[in-house]
Amino acid sequence: MALIVQKYGGTSVGDIDRIRNVARRVILTQEAGNKVVVVLSAMAGQTDRLIGLARQATPMPDEREMDVLLSTGEQISVALLSMMLKSMGVGACSFLGHQVRILTDMAYGRARITDIDTKPIMGCLDEGKVVVVAGFQGLDPTGSITTLGRGGSDTTGVALAAALKADVCEIYTDVDGVYTTDPNIVREARKLARISYDEMLEMASLGAKVLQIRSVEFAKKYDVPIHVRSSFTEDEGTMVVREDEGMEKVVVSGVAYSKDVGRITLTKMPDRPGIAAKVFEPLAAADIVVDMIIQNTGADGMTDLTFTCSRGDFGRAMDLARQSATALGGQKVLGDASLAKVSIIGVGMRSHSGVASQMFQTLAAEGINIIMISTSEIKVSCVVEEKYTELAVRVLHQAFGLDKPPVEEPIK
Amino acid sequence: MALIVQKYGGTSVGDIDRIRNVARRVILTQEAGNKVVVVLSAMAGQTDRLIGLARQATPMPDEREMDVLLSTGEQISVALLSMMLKSMGVGACSFLGHQVRILTDMAYGRARITDIDTKPIMGCLDEGKVVVVAGFQGLDPTGSITTLGRGGSDTTGVALAAALKADVCEIYTDVDGVYTTDPNIVREARKLARISYDEMLEMASLGAKVLQIRSVEFAKKYDVPIHVRSSFTEDEGTMVVREDEGMEKVVVSGVAYSKDVGRITLTKMPDRPGIAAKVFEPLAAADIVVDMIIQNTGADGMTDLTFTCSRGDFGRAMDLARQSATALGGQKVLGDASLAKVSIIGVGMRSHSGVASQMFQTLAAEGINIIMISTSEIKVSCVVEEKYTELAVRVLHQAFGLDKPPVEEPIK
Repeated sequence: MALIVQKYGGTSVGDIDRIRNVARRVILTQEAGNKVVVVLSAMAGQTDRLIGLARQATPMPDEREMDVLLSTGEQISVALLSMMLKSMGVGACSFLGHQVRILTDMAYGRARITDIDTKPIMGCLDEGKVVVVAGFQGLDPTGSITTLGRGGSDTTGVALAAALKADVCEIYTDVDGVYTTDPNIVREARKLARISYDEMLEMASLGAKVLQIRSVEFAKKYDVPIHVRSSFTEDEGTMVVREDEGMEKVVVSGVAYSKDVGRITLTKMPDRPGIAAKVFEPLAAADIVVDMIIQNTGADGMTDLTFTCSRGDFGRAMDLARQSATALGGQKVLGDASLAKVSIIGVGMRSHSGVASQMFQTLAAEGINIIMISTSEIKVSCVVEEKYTELAVRVLHQAFGLDKPPVEEPIK
Repeated sequence: MALIVQKYGGTSVGDIDRIRNVARRVILTQEAGNKVVVVLSAMAGQTDRLIGLARQATPMPDEREMDVLLSTGEQISVALLSMMLKSMGVGACSFLGHQVRILTDMAYGRARITDIDTKPIMGCLDEGKVVVVAGFQGLDPTGSITTLGRGGSDTTGVALAAALKADVCEIYTDVDGVYTTDPNIVREARKLARISYDEMLEMASLGAKVLQIRSVEFAKKYDVPIHVRSSFTEDEGTMVVREDEGMEKVVVSGVAYSKDVGRITLTKMPDRPGIAAKVFEPLAAADIVVDMIIQNTGADGMTDLTFTCSRGDFGRAMDLARQSATALGGQKVLGDASLAKVSIIGVGMRSHSGVASQMFQTLAAEGINIIMISTSEIKVSCVVEEKYTELAVRVLHQAFGLDKPPVEEPIK
């Protein structure tokens, strides 16, 4: 008998018919001889409606009260699914964050789970019941409700799976798995049978929005196998698992991209220690996330300093960069907000050389100019002009053979 | 420094502007030097929307899960008011049933409060904060959410006032007080400055739906003064208080009516012990609330047995009465679903005689036939044909001088 945690996202519980579909799926899983813990998000649109109410109330809602407000969304979902399961003759019990108890720190709106009391859930499972847990919410040490941030229900699912030592955490969403790249751009994109946690982290942070990054970090830390799949089909999805030897045979697992890239260059900055810190301190203070940073070796005591940020932050980042350039004696500030980042990802890169140069050659062959490059152990990213995004993704997908089935062993 | 509990109903928090109005009122009360505990209902319409969702999910929703669902309504209200108060610079803190903690029995959907832990609230009040409590909800001994039944927020307000030893519980609603009768029927109806708990109980159960009956019983038991008033005006409303000597000078305080009356008569039933029990047992088992019961002294070993019930139950009650008549050897069953009950209420009746006969004479003078009569210490009710309802209310209102200001002392 396996213990399975199933997490259903907002679209999967978007209306009563879809919740009924979830109920059927849960019952089938239980009837197959498994213990089932279900984690639900709020019905699609509900969280946005609540945020709208709060914004009407005040432009800057108090964070503690915001969590009291937002946590009602998941509460509604779990009540509806539980009453539906019971009406279908299946023992079920809903649990809210304060009932499980999912303990967190006091960082309202972005709380981190510190502990989970699995006893109440195990008790219910031992009685043969389906346990239905509200995702996204927890309880802080003062007894106040907290929420885990957007997409936090993924984290609830994985954290519960870790705490309960579940065999798998199934994440049901509106896509049926993780693909080698965006199927909207490359028709030949293939669904991956499995992918390592690290690859998934790179994919997610690069814009493949299938799983919340924190939930993958959690799964990696506690070695929880995640099965990303669709609630609208019976097909197997993608297993996100610990890296194994078979995975290294595949050099590149996927091609990711992000069109949300702005680049800012401060030219002829004094090339001495402490300058970079002085440029990036004000950006950090303004909560601007800086992605890539490049500083070339300088000449004549001067150097160019370049970084990228999201387009939403671009205007503010330009202002701050201009202030820094003036204060520190730089020459001028150049900015370009219409860029994109294209990346190849694969744990196989660790043991294969020449991957980066093959990427550069492939782009060059199409006349695509590379503006910036950054690399990690399992990823190479190139910033290019936005208009080349789709072309770059297509040629890289083909160049690394992602349209062909992999050599790796199939999942048992 | 007084401690005031203010309870605002669904229409008073019906939208963001109305919640803002509540916030202003709360702040004024605090600025006048009072400690304020606010109890909120769900925004008008919200509970019905949630019930609609549940009915879509299943025709017979599980009661425990229904309470999980419904309690979100008040949770949204308290979060919105608290964030609004904080944005206006007033310290505030929301409390849900499980945070206060308002402990109840396990009767989901109609739970009774067993205990309230006032410590968290007193702590907040001592810090100078406004405490905002979700009405209608509690926590059972197993840690599950319960609700107190429709209008249960009134009970939350009064129970909190009792537990906190508050000076008054203000109940804000969409009417500005308790009237001598329905102003829609009698233009001269006067707002009562005060009324006793017992009179209020009779008024409420007779159809003046200003306060939930249970909250008045609670207030009477713990001697909590209730101030019924409107959130849309600054006017004083009606104080519902312990009976005092001044009140007895007023013979009749109000005229109530209910058009929701059906009458059923079982003719020529055997006049022997146990017959009535056999007639009413099946009605009770079918959850039919029987109001008045009349059995005249029999002749020839036979008697007529008459009772009233609400119109919604009339059809089922007729069926059951027919079965009983057949089984017990009665003659026939007569029914009339188009009746009304008109009542005069006043604690002064205890010390004044002739009140009932004055009522009968008044109705007779207008040619209104009295079909049934029932009396209590502080109430006389007459069942009449429905078409006479408004006329009967008007003439009784005038006959007992309710259009004139009372002789009693004004409230200090």
